[in-house]
Amino acid sequence: MKTYLDCFPCFLKQALNAVRFTTADEKLHEKVMHDAIKMAASMDPRQTPPEMGRQIHRLIRELTGVADPYQEVKKQFNDYALAAEPRLRKIIEQSQKPLETAVRLAIAGNIIDFGPNSRLVDTQVSEAIEHSLSAPLDTEELETFKKSLNTSSVILYLGDNAGEIVFDRLLIEQLPLDKITFVVKGYPVINDATMSDAIATGLTELVRVIDNGHDAPGTIIDQCSDEFKKIYARADLVIAKGQGNYETLSNEDKNIFFLLKAKCPIIARHLAVELGSIVIRRNHFNLRAEQ
Amino acid sequence: MKTYLDCFPCFLKQALNAVRFTTADEKLHEKVMHDAIKMAASMDPRQTPPEMGRQIHRLIRELTGVADPYQEVKKQFNDYALAAEPRLRKIIEQSQKPLETAVRLAIAGNIIDFGPNSRLVDTQVSEAIEHSLSAPLDTEELETFKKSLNTSSVILYLGDNAGEIVFDRLLIEQLPLDKITFVVKGYPVINDATMSDAIATGLTELVRVIDNGHDAPGTIIDQCSDEFKKIYARADLVIAKGQGNYETLSNEDKNIFFLLKAKCPIIARHLAVELGSIVIRRNHFNLRAEQ
Repeated sequence: MKTYLDCFPCFLKQALNAVRFTTADEKLHEKVMHDAIKMAASMDPRQTPPEMGRQIHRLIRELTGVADPYQEVKKQFNDYALAAEPRLRKIIEQSQKPLETAVRLAIAGNIIDFGPNSRLVDTQVSEAIEHSLSAPLDTEELETFKKSLNTSSVILYLGDNAGEIVFDRLLIEQLPLDKITFVVKGYPVINDATMSDAIATGLTELVRVIDNGHDAPGTIIDQCSDEFKKIYARADLVIAKGQGNYETLSNEDKNIFFLLKAKCPIIARHLAVELGSIVIRRNHFNLRAEQ
Repeated sequence: MKTYLDCFPCFLKQALNAVRFTTADEKLHEKVMHDAIKMAASMDPRQTPPEMGRQIHRLIRELTGVADPYQEVKKQFNDYALAAEPRLRKIIEQSQKPLETAVRLAIAGNIIDFGPNSRLVDTQVSEAIEHSLSAPLDTEELETFKKSLNTSSVILYLGDNAGEIVFDRLLIEQLPLDKITFVVKGYPVINDATMSDAIATGLTELVRVIDNGHDAPGTIIDQCSDEFKKIYARADLVIAKGQGNYETLSNEDKNIFFLLKAKCPIIARHLAVELGSIVIRRNHFNLRAEQ
């Protein structure tokens, strides 16, 4: 997905939220805003929005000297989700359609995001779970997803945020474990999950986990590590969580299923869904090829 | 009021709303966004926000070749307010406190604004009127305002938007007409009232009306006409409507009463009121002098 004009004001707002979250030093707030505006002025709009996000958050880390501003928040979200995990697993086990329920919960977990929402409270997560369990879901796309699961031998699961990966783990428990490689970010960016989150939530004990070698809040393939590129090339099914992965991979000619909550009006419009919808969507290159 | 960091994303959002309102040409949308970002990069934050607004809207007028993009909207708001005028006048006439009621309605009229709100519907104006008639109002400040009215001989009333000036007219009917000069903008900017709106709404038949010779959505005194500067210097009371006038005049050493609805979170914080509050506020230079 290209960067829309609407994304530019949003970048600056996110930059301001992020630097205020990281430091109370107003001189640094000013410096980040100034540099973010300069970046925006020179940004190629054919780039995807996470490219700009990457630059902004790298800038904040450099200027503040804080390597992982969201470390504490990520821990809190992991702990929160781990505490909820037994209850969520029971919902899946008691469901008539455990895979569908696990997909719905994995999408609900995508509410845990520090990009568009600068603050997040427990009630929002609980509401997202309730909503996700009953909201309309594209069952045709879900069926295609199930078929693809059955016919695929190398499955890549691209994670999104800390906390959310506990929800992903519950979905992964419903999938063929030996075929799955879970991918986290190579370096801290916002509250995106890195290897330490995968370890803290026990994901590494369940499936193979690699990092992508990069620090974008999405997956910019040509900037990822060779290890990632190799397995991506071999994968016959990619499960991609969250808006950042949709923004960076929606034009890929690959069998990708995006699982996300449409939290941004521009992404919702791009997906042709209502804001706040729960989404399972195969990337359109495949749809086109089949039509 | 200086420009806060929070204003920068808002500038870009307003620029995008405004150019989309003016033309469907996406190339021009891009050009305006690009130039607005460059302007933001070089803007001195000690300038007030309307200085940036002035530059953005001038840019849009230049690039589109449309001298007054909001002409039709301004006419609609004038007509809407003129249709409501007899009903509003009756509310004032039947009130136990006609001046206070007229002040409340003049503040309600400030909801008619195309800056922060890109679209506005009838129900919003009706709700603003209902709210303004019953919401808490600083009665101490109102009493000071009344005293100042009685002791002043040259009163300047700085208007804000088309449509809103009909509400202002109802307040002016409660004031000493021969002492009042009403001021409109010198050139079109957003939906700010200009001389043609003052004529269309009959304001010119009630009091002396001048334009300020400038095109900022506020009052940047040193850029206004000599005629305006002269009468401003002589005025012993200034009634300033709306956020733009507050942003540009809050640091003036002058007897100014600001009448506005706090529609922007930054301005609400600056005034130390809740978002959406109705505000009558004497400028702090005078308060300081008296304390």
